[in-house]
Amino acid sequence: MGKVRRLGVLTSGGDCAGLNAVIRAVTYRAVRTYGWKVFGIIDGSMGLMERPLRYRELDLDMFSGNMLREAGTFLGTVNRGDPFNFPMPDGSTKDRSLDFVDGFNKLSLDALVVIGGDGSMKILKQLCDRGSINMVGVPKTIDNDVHGTDFAVGFTTAVNVVTEALDRLQPTAASHHRVMILEVMGRDAGHIAINAAISGGADVALVPEIPYKLDSIARKIEEVIREGRNHALVVVAEGVKTEDGTPATKAQSHGQMRYGGIGQYLSEHLAAKTELETRVTTLGHVQRGGTPSTRDRLLASAFGVHAVDMVAQGQSGHMVAWRDNALVEVPLEDVCIGPRTLSPDDALVTAARGLGIYVGEEGA
Amino acid sequence: MGKVRRLGVLTSGGDCAGLNAVIRAVTYRAVRTYGWKVFGIIDGSMGLMERPLRYRELDLDMFSGNMLREAGTFLGTVNRGDPFNFPMPDGSTKDRSLDFVDGFNKLSLDALVVIGGDGSMKILKQLCDRGSINMVGVPKTIDNDVHGTDFAVGFTTAVNVVTEALDRLQPTAASHHRVMILEVMGRDAGHIAINAAISGGADVALVPEIPYKLDSIARKIEEVIREGRNHALVVVAEGVKTEDGTPATKAQSHGQMRYGGIGQYLSEHLAAKTELETRVTTLGHVQRGGTPSTRDRLLASAFGVHAVDMVAQGQSGHMVAWRDNALVEVPLEDVCIGPRTLSPDDALVTAARGLGIYVGEEGA
Amino acid sequence: MGKVRRLGVLTSGGDCAGLNAVIRAVTYRAVRTYGWKVFGIIDGSMGLMERPLRYRELDLDMFSGNMLREAGTFLGTVNRGDPFNFPMPDGSTKDRSLDFVDGFNKLSLDALVVIGGDGSMKILKQLCDRGSINMVGVPKTIDNDVHGTDFAVGFTTAVNVVTEALDRLQPTAASHHRVMILEVMGRDAGHIAINAAISGGADVALVPEIPYKLDSIARKIEEVIREGRNHALVVVAEGVKTEDGTPATKAQSHGQMRYGGIGQYLSEHLAAKTELETRVTTLGHVQRGGTPSTRDRLLASAFGVHAVDMVAQGQSGHMVAWRDNALVEVPLEDVCIGPRTLSPDDALVTAARGLGIYVGEEGA
Amino acid sequence: MGKVRRLGVLTSGGDCAGLNAVIRAVTYRAVRTYGWKVFGIIDGSMGLMERPLRYRELDLDMFSGNMLREAGTFLGTVNRGDPFNFPMPDGSTKDRSLDFVDGFNKLSLDALVVIGGDGSMKILKQLCDRGSINMVGVPKTIDNDVHGTDFAVGFTTAVNVVTEALDRLQPTAASHHRVMILEVMGRDAGHIAINAAISGGADVALVPEIPYKLDSIARKIEEVIREGRNHALVVVAEGVKTEDGTPATKAQSHGQMRYGGIGQYLSEHLAAKTELETRVTTLGHVQRGGTPSTRDRLLASAFGVHAVDMVAQGQSGHMVAWRDNALVEVPLEDVCIGPRTLSPDDALVTAARGLGIYVGEEGA
Repeated sequence: MGKVRRLGVLTSGGDCAGLNAVIRAVTYRAVRTYGWKVFGIIDGSMGLMERPLRYRELDLDMFSGNMLREAGTFLGTVNRGDPFNFPMPDGSTKDRSLDFVDGFNKLSLDALVVIGGDGSMKILKQLCDRGSINMVGVPKTIDNDVHGTDFAVGFTTAVNVVTEALDRLQPTAASHHRVMILEVMGRDAGHIAINAAISGGADVALVPEIPYKLDSIARKIEEVIREGRNHALVVVAEGVKTEDGTPATKAQSHGQMRYGGIGQYLSEHLAAKTELETRVTTLGHVQRGGTPSTRDRLLASAFGVHAVDMVAQGQSGHMVAWRDNALVEVPLEDVCIGPRTLSPDDALVTAARGLGIYVGEEGA
Repeated sequence: MGKVRRLGVLTSGGDCAGLNAVIRAVTYRAVRTYGWKVFGIIDGSMGLMERPLRYRELDLDMFSGNMLREAGTFLGTVNRGDPFNFPMPDGSTKDRSLDFVDGFNKLSLDALVVIGGDGSMKILKQLCDRGSINMVGVPKTIDNDVHGTDFAVGFTTAVNVVTEALDRLQPTAASHHRVMILEVMGRDAGHIAINAAISGGADVALVPEIPYKLDSIARKIEEVIREGRNHALVVVAEGVKTEDGTPATKAQSHGQMRYGGIGQYLSEHLAAKTELETRVTTLGHVQRGGTPSTRDRLLASAFGVHAVDMVAQGQSGHMVAWRDNALVEVPLEDVCIGPRTLSPDDALVTAARGLGIYVGEEGA
Repeated sequence: MGKVRRLGVLTSGGDCAGLNAVIRAVTYRAVRTYGWKVFGIIDGSMGLMERPLRYRELDLDMFSGNMLREAGTFLGTVNRGDPFNFPMPDGSTKDRSLDFVDGFNKLSLDALVVIGGDGSMKILKQLCDRGSINMVGVPKTIDNDVHGTDFAVGFTTAVNVVTEALDRLQPTAASHHRVMILEVMGRDAGHIAINAAISGGADVALVPEIPYKLDSIARKIEEVIREGRNHALVVVAEGVKTEDGTPATKAQSHGQMRYGGIGQYLSEHLAAKTELETRVTTLGHVQRGGTPSTRDRLLASAFGVHAVDMVAQGQSGHMVAWRDNALVEVPLEDVCIGPRTLSPDDALVTAARGLGIYVGEEGA
Repeated sequence: MGKVRRLGVLTSGGDCAGLNAVIRAVTYRAVRTYGWKVFGIIDGSMGLMERPLRYRELDLDMFSGNMLREAGTFLGTVNRGDPFNFPMPDGSTKDRSLDFVDGFNKLSLDALVVIGGDGSMKILKQLCDRGSINMVGVPKTIDNDVHGTDFAVGFTTAVNVVTEALDRLQPTAASHHRVMILEVMGRDAGHIAINAAISGGADVALVPEIPYKLDSIARKIEEVIREGRNHALVVVAEGVKTEDGTPATKAQSHGQMRYGGIGQYLSEHLAAKTELETRVTTLGHVQRGGTPSTRDRLLASAFGVHAVDMVAQGQSGHMVAWRDNALVEVPLEDVCIGPRTLSPDDALVTAARGLGIYVGEEGA
C-alpha cells in the first residue's frame, strides 16, 4: 500500500471486553509514532455504507480517562444484515458493498483496521476485497474460536466472568447439597467451557466437540459424592446437543419444544439419574461485558500497536495474532475458514481429565 | 432462661452470603466472652430431627482462616419438608417436631441461635415453642423481606451481584443499541430490584408491589433515546406479573405455557413496542453466593455478637435487628408475619423516581 | 431563594468514589424534573475564581455511559489555597472571595450544590455567605467524619478497598506465620479502621480516638496464637499516635525522625514484644478510588436528587444527610464544626470488642 | 525412580496465589489416577528437618470446598534459614541437610513435588541431591523470574492486583491533576512493572533491567499534559535504582538515609522537574495475595497434573513449565541459575514503547 496518512478503524460482530483498548492502542500508535489521522467508523460496516457517513476522528485526548478499562465498543457494532444481500424495507435485498467502498474512498482513507471475530472478519475481508481496500485484522471474540491465534481479545474476560459465577455457585451448591449446572457461551467451540471448568473447579465440562453420555456424568457425580463432597458443578457450552445429537432447544415430544436449552435438559436428566437436586443457571450476556481482564488489555494493546505497524509496513490482507507467546501475522485467507474448535487432545482437555473432570467420552 | 453453658446454632432456609460470618461471631462471643460450648447443627432442623444427631462442636480454631469471607453455610441448610408434616417414604406425612425437641435435649443445649429468613424463622419458632426451647433469631435473606429489620444478612451482597451484572450489561447494550432486561430475585418483594436499579443505572425498575403499564415502559425508553442514549436497561423482580396481573410463567395461549418468565414476557412486548432489539438475562443462583460484602460482614458480625448477648440476658423469643442505624431486639411474633414488601413510598422508590427511573404507576 | 433556573454544582476537597454519581443525580433531577440548566464548575472554587470562568454545561447525554460507575470527579477538585488568603506568585496572600462571588454572578447562577467534606464544606459556606449565595451541601469523604450524617459518599468504597486488602494479607500472613499491620486513612477519625477491622477479620484495631498499650496488643496476639491461629492482623488509622501520645512520624531520638509512620512504629515494637515476624503495608491513595460501591452509588443518587429538591424548596444553608435510614436536612452551621470522630461507645466499637478484637483500652 | 506409592509435596519461598490450586491438582492426579498416598509437608523444608516430622496426609475430601480459590498455602512456607548453614540458638550454624533427607526417608516417600521460585527451588534441589531424592519442580513466584517457563504460578494474580491499583489511582490523579507513582514488587526483574504498566494505562514504566533518565521521564509527562491529559501514572519496580545507579533506599546525604525507596526518590525529583503534584503508593504485600486469577488457577492445575505424571514417568530432576503455549519439562540445572530478568527487546517492552510509554532509554 502507498503512503498512509489516514487510517480507519472499526469494530464488527458481537461486542466483548477490550475493544476500546484496541482502538486506543491503534490511535496511540498511529498518531504518536506515525503522525497519521485516525477515523473511528461508527457501527461497523454500517458507518461507511450509510449517508451521511458516520465516523469520528480519534485523537489522543479521547483516551486520557477511562477508555482502556471500559467494556464494549464506543464506536458501536450494530449489524443490520449482510452488506452483499442487505435487507431493504420493501423486503427485497440489495448488494450494498459498493456503498462501503465508496464510503471508504469518500473519507480518503488509506487503510482499515478491522477488529472482528470469525464471521465478521470474513465479511469485512470480502468488502475490502471488493474495493481493493488495504485491511489489517485484529481478532476478538469471547469464544476464542478465531483461527490463527492462541488468544482473541475478549476471551479471558469471558472466562473470568464464568469462573466467578462458579465461585458463587459452589458455596450455594454445598449449602444445599445440589448439582449446579452452568450454561455458558460457545455455540461451536468449547473454549470458554473447558477453561472455566478447570479454573472454577467443576466436575463435568461438556463441549460441542466431544460426545458424552448422561450415565457417565451421573457416574462422575456419584464418584464425587463418594469422595466426600456433597455437591457437584457442571459446566456446559450452549452449543452442546442432547445425548442423541439433537439440538436441546428443539428436542420435541408430540410437536412441542421440550427444553429451554441444554442446561435445562441436563438438569432434568441428572435429577432423575442421581438422588441430588439440580439447578440450572444461564449466564447470557454478562459474559460479554465487564472491565477487561489484565490479559485482554495486554493483548488488545499489543495487537493495536502491531496492527498499525503492519499497515505501515504494507502487510495488508493479514491479521495480527498471538501464537506461541509472540506476535505474528497471519494471512486473512487462513483465518476466514469458519470457527476454530477445541481439539479433543488440547492441553487443557488433557489437564481437565488429569484432574478427574469428566469431559465427555475419551477416544470419541 | 437459666444459666447457659451449651449453645446451639443453625442456619435455615435458602443460603446467602454472610452466614458463616454470623456463625463465627456467635462462636467468638460465646466462647471468648462467656466460655460456653457452641454446637453447630448440620442442615438446619434436620440435624436435630435425625438420629444419630448431626452436629459439630465449634471452636475458635475453625475460624482462624477464611471462614469470615466464605459464602454459603458450612453447616448446611438442607430442607426435606415441613417438620410438622414431614413427608415419609411411603407417601404419608408425620409430625416430627418432637424429634427436634428431643434432639435439642439429647444435646443438652440451653438455647438455640437460629439464622433464618421470613419463612424458616417461623417454622423454627414453632419447633422451639413446641419444646419451650430458648431461641434467638438472626435475620438473613437475599430478598431483605424480613419484618422488623432494615437489613438482613445477605441482602447487600445480592444487590452487589445484580449491580455488577448491570455494569456488564450496559456496555454491551450500548455497543449494540439494545434494551437489556435483567430478571432478578424477589418473589414477593422488590428490594433487590429497586436497590440494584438505582446503583446499576437502570431506566426501568419493576417490582411486585407496584403495577406498571407496558406503554409507560415503552414511553420511558423512547424518552431515554431522545435524550441521546442509544440503549436502555430494565430490571425486573421475578415475582412481577404480566400487565394484566397473571403470573408470567403461566401466561397461556391455547393451553400452552407462553413465557419462560417475566423477563421473557417483557422482552417480547418491548421489542414489539419499541424499535430496539431486546435481550433478557436471568441471573439465578449466582445472586445467593460470592464473598460477602463488607456490609454483610459487619452486619453478620454485629448480629452474631448481639444474639449471644441476648441469649445471655434471657431475651429468648426475640430476633436481633438493625433499625435506624442501631442494634435492637424484636419479638419473634412481630417478625413471623409474612414477607416485608417494598412500600410504594419507600425513600428509594422516591429517589428512583427522582432520577427519572420508571418504577411503575405513581399513585397506584 | 427565588425562582431557580440555573444551578451550579462543584466538588471540593479530596476526591472519592461516587462524586460523579452525585453530579449525575443532580443533573438528572434538575433537568428532567425541573427543566433547569445545570453548570458543572471545574476544580472546585477555582473554577469560579479564575478568569475566564471554568465550567461546562451538564446535559443528560453526558451521563448516558459509564459515569455512574467512574471514580473521582470529572469536574476536578484542585485546591491552590485558601480563597480568603490565597497565595500569590510574589509570596503575598490575597482575599479572592469576591472573585468567587463575582464568578457566580457572571454565570447568572441561582444556587450552588457543593459536594464536599468537613473542611471544604466550611470554606465553601464562607464563600457563599460572602455573596449571599444559595448553597446546598452534599457530604462526601472517605473518612466518614462529616457531622450530621451517618454516611458520607465515598466511605463504604474506602472500607471495601481496605477490607479487600485484609482479605489479601490474611493468607500471606497465615502462610508465613506473620503479624500483618495495615495502615489506613483516618487522620482524626477511626471510622475506616473500625469498619474494616471487623469486616476484614482483624485482631487489633487502633483508632485516634482511643488510647492503647503496646503490651495489650502483644497480649492479644499471643492469645490469638494460643487459640490455634498462627498469624494476626492489625489495622491502624494513620492518625494514631505512639503509645506515649507523640506523632509517629515525628518521634525523634537525637534529632532524627524515627518512624515513617504509625505502621512502622507498631511493626518494630510488636516484632520485639512477640516472637512473630511483622510486616507493614500502607495503602495510601488506592483507598480514594475505584468503582464506587453499590451503597455509595445509592447514597450519591439519593443525595443528588434530594439536594436539588432542597434547592427547589428554598432550603439554602442546609446539607442533605442520611440519618437513621432516612434522608434529612441539616443546617450547615451544625455540620461545619470540625471532624466527627468515632465515639468510644459506638455500636461498631462494641461489636468489635464483642468479637474479641482489641480496640484500645476500655473505659479510656 | 522406582514404583511410586507415597508422594510428598511442599511449598517453599514467598507465598503467592495459586499454591493451594497446585497442591489440589497434585493430590487429585496422584490419588484419583494413580492411587498413591500424598503427604503435604508443613512449612517447606522445615517440616522434614524438624522432629517430630510435620506433615499431613492429603485426601480428596480436603479440596471439596474452597481450596482452589484460596490464596496463600495451607501447608505454610516458613523459612528459618539456609538448611546447609542453619542458624542455631547459640549463634553458630549447622548443616541440617541430612535431617531433611532423613525426614524424607522416615516418611517412606518415593518422590517430592517442590513448588518454589528461583531461590527456593535451588536450595530444595541441593537438599534432594544430597539424598538422591526424586524431585519434580513446579514454578511459582509473583515476579515471574523463574528461568525455563513463560509463566510461573502467582504472577498474573500479582499483575491483576497492580493493575487494579492503577485503575484506582488514575481517577484520583485526574481529579487532582497529579503524577501518581506506584512502586511494585520486582527486586531483580521488571515483569510485573511492564505488564501492569500496559494493562493499567501508565505513562512511564521503570524496570531494573533498563536505565532511565529523570529528564526523559519529565519530558514524557510534559508531552502527556500537552496532549490534553491533566495527570500521569508512573509504575516503578522496587529494584530500580536512582538515576546514578545507587540503591534508592541507601542514597545518603551527610550520613543519613535520604529516601524510603525508589518511589519516594522519583516523587521528589519529578515534583521538582514538573509543575505537577506527585504522590507515591507502595503496594507491598497485597500483591502476594488474593483469590488466584483464572489464569493462575489454570496454570496451577495443569502444572500439578503434569508434575505428577512426570513423577510417574521417572522424570526426576525436572521442572514442569509453560512455554510457547504448551506444557514442557525443563532440567532443574537449567532453571537454578538466578532470576530470569526482562529482556530489553521483550515483546511487551516493544508494545509498551509502541503505545508511547517511557520504558527507559532505548538502545541502553
